[in-house]
Amino acid sequence: MASARKRSEKSGLPPGSLVYVGEERHEPVRVEVITYDLRACTQRIVSPEELDLTPREEEGILWVNLDGVHDASLLERIGAVFGLHELTLEDILNTEQRPKLEIYDRYVFIVMKMLWYDGGERRLVHEQVSFILGEKFLLSFQEGVAGDVFESVRQRLRNERARIRSEGTDFLCYTLIDAIVDHYFAVLERIGEHISEIEDELIREADHQTLQTIHQLKRELVLLRKSVWPLREIVGAMERREIPFVTPSSQPFLRDVYDHIIQVMETLETYRDMLSGMVDIYMSTVSNRMNEIMKVLTIIATVFIPLTFIAGVYGMNFEHMPELHWRWGYAFAWGIMATVALGMFIYFRKKKWM
Amino acid sequence: MASARKRSEKSGLPPGSLVYVGEERHEPVRVEVITYDLRACTQRIVSPEELDLTPREEEGILWVNLDGVHDASLLERIGAVFGLHELTLEDILNTEQRPKLEIYDRYVFIVMKMLWYDGGERRLVHEQVSFILGEKFLLSFQEGVAGDVFESVRQRLRNERARIRSEGTDFLCYTLIDAIVDHYFAVLERIGEHISEIEDELIREADHQTLQTIHQLKRELVLLRKSVWPLREIVGAMERREIPFVTPSSQPFLRDVYDHIIQVMETLETYRDMLSGMVDIYMSTVSNRMNEIMKVLTIIATVFIPLTFIAGVYGMNFEHMPELHWRWGYAFAWGIMATVALGMFIYFRKKKWM
Amino acid sequence: MASARKRSEKSGLPPGSLVYVGEERHEPVRVEVITYDLRACTQRIVSPEELDLTPREEEGILWVNLDGVHDASLLERIGAVFGLHELTLEDILNTEQRPKLEIYDRYVFIVMKMLWYDGGERRLVHEQVSFILGEKFLLSFQEGVAGDVFESVRQRLRNERARIRSEGTDFLCYTLIDAIVDHYFAVLERIGEHISEIEDELIREADHQTLQTIHQLKRELVLLRKSVWPLREIVGAMERREIPFVTPSSQPFLRDVYDHIIQVMETLETYRDMLSGMVDIYMSTVSNRMNEIMKVLTIIATVFIPLTFIAGVYGMNFEHMPELHWRWGYAFAWGIMATVALGMFIYFRKKKWM
Amino acid sequence: MASARKRSEKSGLPPGSLVYVGEERHEPVRVEVITYDLRACTQRIVSPEELDLTPREEEGILWVNLDGVHDASLLERIGAVFGLHELTLEDILNTEQRPKLEIYDRYVFIVMKMLWYDGGERRLVHEQVSFILGEKFLLSFQEGVAGDVFESVRQRLRNERARIRSEGTDFLCYTLIDAIVDHYFAVLERIGEHISEIEDELIREADHQTLQTIHQLKRELVLLRKSVWPLREIVGAMERREIPFVTPSSQPFLRDVYDHIIQVMETLETYRDMLSGMVDIYMSTVSNRMNEIMKVLTIIATVFIPLTFIAGVYGMNFEHMPELHWRWGYAFAWGIMATVALGMFIYFRKKKWM
Amino acid sequence: MASARKRSEKSGLPPGSLVYVGEERHEPVRVEVITYDLRACTQRIVSPEELDLTPREEEGILWVNLDGVHDASLLERIGAVFGLHELTLEDILNTEQRPKLEIYDRYVFIVMKMLWYDGGERRLVHEQVSFILGEKFLLSFQEGVAGDVFESVRQRLRNERARIRSEGTDFLCYTLIDAIVDHYFAVLERIGEHISEIEDELIREADHQTLQTIHQLKRELVLLRKSVWPLREIVGAMERREIPFVTPSSQPFLRDVYDHIIQVMETLETYRDMLSGMVDIYMSTVSNRMNEIMKVLTIIATVFIPLTFIAGVYGMNFEHMPELHWRWGYAFAWGIMATVALGMFIYFRKKKWM
Repeated sequence: MASARKRSEKSGLPPGSLVYVGEERHEPVRVEVITYDLRACTQRIVSPEELDLTPREEEGILWVNLDGVHDASLLERIGAVFGLHELTLEDILNTEQRPKLEIYDRYVFIVMKMLWYDGGERRLVHEQVSFILGEKFLLSFQEGVAGDVFESVRQRLRNERARIRSEGTDFLCYTLIDAIVDHYFAVLERIGEHISEIEDELIREADHQTLQTIHQLKRELVLLRKSVWPLREIVGAMERREIPFVTPSSQPFLRDVYDHIIQVMETLETYRDMLSGMVDIYMSTVSNRMNEIMKVLTIIATVFIPLTFIAGVYGMNFEHMPELHWRWGYAFAWGIMATVALGMFIYFRKKKWM
Repeated sequence: MASARKRSEKSGLPPGSLVYVGEERHEPVRVEVITYDLRACTQRIVSPEELDLTPREEEGILWVNLDGVHDASLLERIGAVFGLHELTLEDILNTEQRPKLEIYDRYVFIVMKMLWYDGGERRLVHEQVSFILGEKFLLSFQEGVAGDVFESVRQRLRNERARIRSEGTDFLCYTLIDAIVDHYFAVLERIGEHISEIEDELIREADHQTLQTIHQLKRELVLLRKSVWPLREIVGAMERREIPFVTPSSQPFLRDVYDHIIQVMETLETYRDMLSGMVDIYMSTVSNRMNEIMKVLTIIATVFIPLTFIAGVYGMNFEHMPELHWRWGYAFAWGIMATVALGMFIYFRKKKWM
Repeated sequence: MASARKRSEKSGLPPGSLVYVGEERHEPVRVEVITYDLRACTQRIVSPEELDLTPREEEGILWVNLDGVHDASLLERIGAVFGLHELTLEDILNTEQRPKLEIYDRYVFIVMKMLWYDGGERRLVHEQVSFILGEKFLLSFQEGVAGDVFESVRQRLRNERARIRSEGTDFLCYTLIDAIVDHYFAVLERIGEHISEIEDELIREADHQTLQTIHQLKRELVLLRKSVWPLREIVGAMERREIPFVTPSSQPFLRDVYDHIIQVMETLETYRDMLSGMVDIYMSTVSNRMNEIMKVLTIIATVFIPLTFIAGVYGMNFEHMPELHWRWGYAFAWGIMATVALGMFIYFRKKKWM
Repeated sequence: MASARKRSEKSGLPPGSLVYVGEERHEPVRVEVITYDLRACTQRIVSPEELDLTPREEEGILWVNLDGVHDASLLERIGAVFGLHELTLEDILNTEQRPKLEIYDRYVFIVMKMLWYDGGERRLVHEQVSFILGEKFLLSFQEGVAGDVFESVRQRLRNERARIRSEGTDFLCYTLIDAIVDHYFAVLERIGEHISEIEDELIREADHQTLQTIHQLKRELVLLRKSVWPLREIVGAMERREIPFVTPSSQPFLRDVYDHIIQVMETLETYRDMLSGMVDIYMSTVSNRMNEIMKVLTIIATVFIPLTFIAGVYGMNFEHMPELHWRWGYAFAWGIMATVALGMFIYFRKKKWM
Repeated sequence: MASARKRSEKSGLPPGSLVYVGEERHEPVRVEVITYDLRACTQRIVSPEELDLTPREEEGILWVNLDGVHDASLLERIGAVFGLHELTLEDILNTEQRPKLEIYDRYVFIVMKMLWYDGGERRLVHEQVSFILGEKFLLSFQEGVAGDVFESVRQRLRNERARIRSEGTDFLCYTLIDAIVDHYFAVLERIGEHISEIEDELIREADHQTLQTIHQLKRELVLLRKSVWPLREIVGAMERREIPFVTPSSQPFLRDVYDHIIQVMETLETYRDMLSGMVDIYMSTVSNRMNEIMKVLTIIATVFIPLTFIAGVYGMNFEHMPELHWRWGYAFAWGIMATVALGMFIYFRKKKWM
């Protein structure tokens, strides 16, 4: 619902209004500038103020990574330097975008979701990541609230003999997307563990809470699906080279990412099916327990009600009740009662209720 | 059902018959005439009678906005001035149309739905909005029963430096559609709050009424979906420039609206899934409560039925019942009864029924 | 099932065998011959024997309307005059066709369903209508069992200034199809009322019968859908002018009919969703009532079973029961019983069962 | 399951191995040779040994019909004469094929299913029919276990003036397919009757068995659907003349068969919907009956438990119980009990439980 | 879940990293080298170290089959000899791939799943098989954990007159795929038997365990479907000759495999439908049993509660109770009780509860 609320506050503003709709943050944006080519790779952390981005074509490939998109003025400066469309800037700020790929004249704009699974609260945290893929530069914008999965990419960049050093911005972009998609598997793994726990709980002691957890998890999967599904088309379009700046040598790698996304989708579907089956099992567990309770009631009641009746009969005060005066009357009454109880017991045994 | 009823009254009339099918209204139609170009912007409210619409090409762009479509003769005059097809006029009057886009020789005809959420009665109110998009003019027809979301557009028009002042009718049309779609988010937000309320209610004290509210809400979502779904194709067709009068510079903006519509659709789907899950939870709550009731009955009955039986036994009137004459007979009976009750109590504890 | 039965009786016959499969009828077929052009319009009812159909091109447009298709020999004569394919004739007679459009060299063959809603038996009655659309003639074949919706068309034809008088056979065909589709709205309105009635019944006093009515209605909607769905393609093909004899000036009108058909389909879907929701509500109503019953039983039983036990205790015949001899023993027993009853009462209040 | 078992026994064999997988049969294959043209039609039953199939082009059209495909050597001889591919022969023998159409250089290979409904065991029997459609010959292979629906075709062939005598092999093939599809209607009719019976049973006395019959029938419909669905594409491909040997004059007839197949499919869907609805009704019937039972228990228990309590009170042995000594004490007790019973009775009446 | 876990351990590694993700294995990989042409066929088992794979074009077709893919260095050597892309090698090692077909410049890469059904644990075991199809060579990589289904192919290769000896690598590849698909039928047969067993169990003595088995089986079918579904496209692409190295003479054979895959899919769907129906039947069985229990309780309680009341009445201690002093009072009481019991008995008989 958060999405709808925040979105509605923006309504009425002209398009291209740079308003940040996300969690409030106050610390300065962390800006990381990496330049590399076959020979060298430099990495600097600069403050937003120092940032001087006059493109220097001689230096090879430029990767600017921002941790935080809440500084609208910084974004505006970057937008001016790289010639970004006002709607692109607006979309980077609006962290409620769905994943998409848009082709502009001088760059390609990609929006994705990075995901974390909060084990404590058992819910997905998602963070928007935007990429601006140009011929000689790549800009990446992270919300910067939950974490970073790009460390492995930085390490690879430092390795002189890594393939990434000799490829273009498209390969860098692929590597970053791959890092994000790889992280999805970790999230799925956590969810899978959670599902296993619920499965155990279902058999041991399912209660109303369990059902709500299942539905909660189902909802998380729907959200996850919404983050992953559009990715399929984005990476598919890149792989078919329908967008500029993608070289043939990156194609097999993009096809690989595409396969991973499909695998994530299929695991998601499997999880959904499992959760649906678990609702069935829960329902059956509940009605099973009901049956248990009813059985106990029925056994106790049907055994004792006739016995109580017999006791009641001999508690009547008629003057002329021959049994009352028999020597073994009392024993006789017990005998009848024992017979009835035994009969009932045998009957229930036969019915497999006991 | 209103739709079917009203529609059927029209059956048998020749096509193009101008009959208003909507809520009855008697006040005169409010006509607003706005003309603007880069230099100036004039806005006038005129009475239907004064309306003189001879197009004056030198004046820039003309926007005529009508609040109310119940004045068939006024519509006929407008139709004559702008050369509208008889079926176009009929569709503007018939407020039960589904959203659509029709291309005529000299104009494009667009039908949309504006939506409000009536918090009191918890139901959607929808109002039809029709646009006639010409090269130099844009006509908008609102039913005028619930409200107006175009105020922000008027304000932007008054701003001399706003982009809208330098663009054509296509950008004006985009701005109006965007205002309507932006309002959908407000409606979704209200529905989202309502769903949260029901969710709380479900856990606290679900009754039969709750289920009906859920189904009611589901139905509203279906109606909402019917209003939004065809929009996707309309705006998609505009963005792909399959219709006349759309300039390339408006394309990124239309793509933006398109994204918003998709976002509305996805939120709708999420809400539907949540409501479906809530039916499950309701059903389980009801059967849970049943279990609760059964448990209490069973515990009470199974504890006291054997006790009553024992009391019954010692209420029998046999002459020879040794226990009756024992000194501690009475205490002995209480002892047996206490033992049985305690045994039952332990059994229920073990079964986790208490 | 009627369809399958009748159809199977025809099996084994060579194709093109003219056998009438429908309700048996004996009265002569009513043949109506209408010719019109801009200047004049003549309408005659002729007996099948008198029918002379040598086409007279000079007379403008010829519309022959038959009320009844059970006279195979008459059909054969008509087929010979207008050059109809043997399978066309067979399909006109076989009133179990699904709606379809077939293009032959010299004419277009259209099959549709006219619908009535029988309020008494609460079921749909459908009647087949076939059209033969030629360049200068239109033949229409109604089963003639339930009614006629073409009266409004006849009236319009008599009006000298009506557009229909100046258009071709395609416009006449459109007008007839429009009349049939308009009638669908009346049928939907009736079904909608019926659904509202059931909705009220559901809340007041749902019983097993209600569920069967809901399923019955669902089935009717499936039948209705089968009659309407193929129409979409038929009218769509006409509107796109994929078939001969359709002039551009009829296109907007056909698009209008197309919209109406979509509207019928959407209303149908909404009704289906409503009925599905009603099954849920019925199920919940039934289990709710069960809960009610269980509550009453539980309250009565759990209150009185302990009381009965106490009474039983003091009905025991032990010699040494001190309470029996107390002055206020009886009052003391009532005191205990009142306390227990009150405790139970408070417990149930707290549980909100009372 | 039979299909999977038999199929697995073939696994490991090279493709084109001629192994008969079907019911074991020992009688010789019945071979029928029919030749016809406009002037003459001869029909002979020959033993497999006599079969001499050197094609004689001068004789018109040759139709060879085999009742039984268990004689692999006979098939091999036929395959050699007509130049059939080894996989074609394998598919004819393997009676677990799904319907399909395969185009080879010199012939078209069509596989279909003939169906019977075994009323006793209430299950579908299906038999594979394969056609080899050449320019001047048509071979048909039936399993020959259940029956034959081609008799009507033979009769038509004997009729000198029948259209079939003047048309090519495509028309003969159409006639045979039409005979098979016509027979589907008879099968549907039988299933429809069966469904009606179950519907009655549902209302009268539904038990666990009924549910299983419904599911059994659903399964039969799934099987039926699997036999009919691919036919749609087969006949559609023939009608669009995407395969050789089909002449334009057969097109309207194939379109006719196509319509019949659609009709069969729609009836199937209707039946499935009906059966699904019947599961709902069954479930509701069962819970309804439960309600009935619970009501009776509740009424009896809640009426008598308080009465028993009152009787218990006056069965207590306190010394000082004034009522016991009243003159009308006994009548007074009956009075209270009658009042309580009456009160309960009125309460239940009000609740509509009685 | 295994898949997600293992996959996540690889995250962060550069693409093309050769890491084996599968069951741990230590024995050396079994390498089998087969060369054949029309005249000769040689088969050798070599140790990984001896493997010398310099391609010798003069020798005809080379088939290298590896049982085990856990030896990354061996794979690297093979990759170097045959010019395999680094991602291909990675995919061969990563045994969690979904079936796919990838076209590279010099070879076609195919991934499939081989399946076994573990009867003891009642679960599917799947093993990845990868094929590298070159013009003159075919490499096959099996995980080698569960078994081998290629023995029949080896036998056919030894047969001098077998078709396979005269065809190319495409036919060999088809034969191997066919062997795998054929084995699916055996797996389906086992699952089918298992389903039959559960069906019997459902009727005899369904318990909570049965439901879990059904859901377990449903899950296995989902996994099976995921292994088979992509195959359809793979073999379809081969059959349409969209990939290199496929000759026209293999086309009918590939079409045959395609048909088998469709048949597997359809059997899967049938099994899923059956299992869904079985959940319904289980649910109904459980509620049926509940009804049984309730009936017994109701009969016993409603018969004895009134009787106990009567006994209670005559156990009251009023001074003036005329019946108590009647000569046949006791018999009279028994008479009333017998009458009530009989009445109840008749009532239950009429209601068909007994």
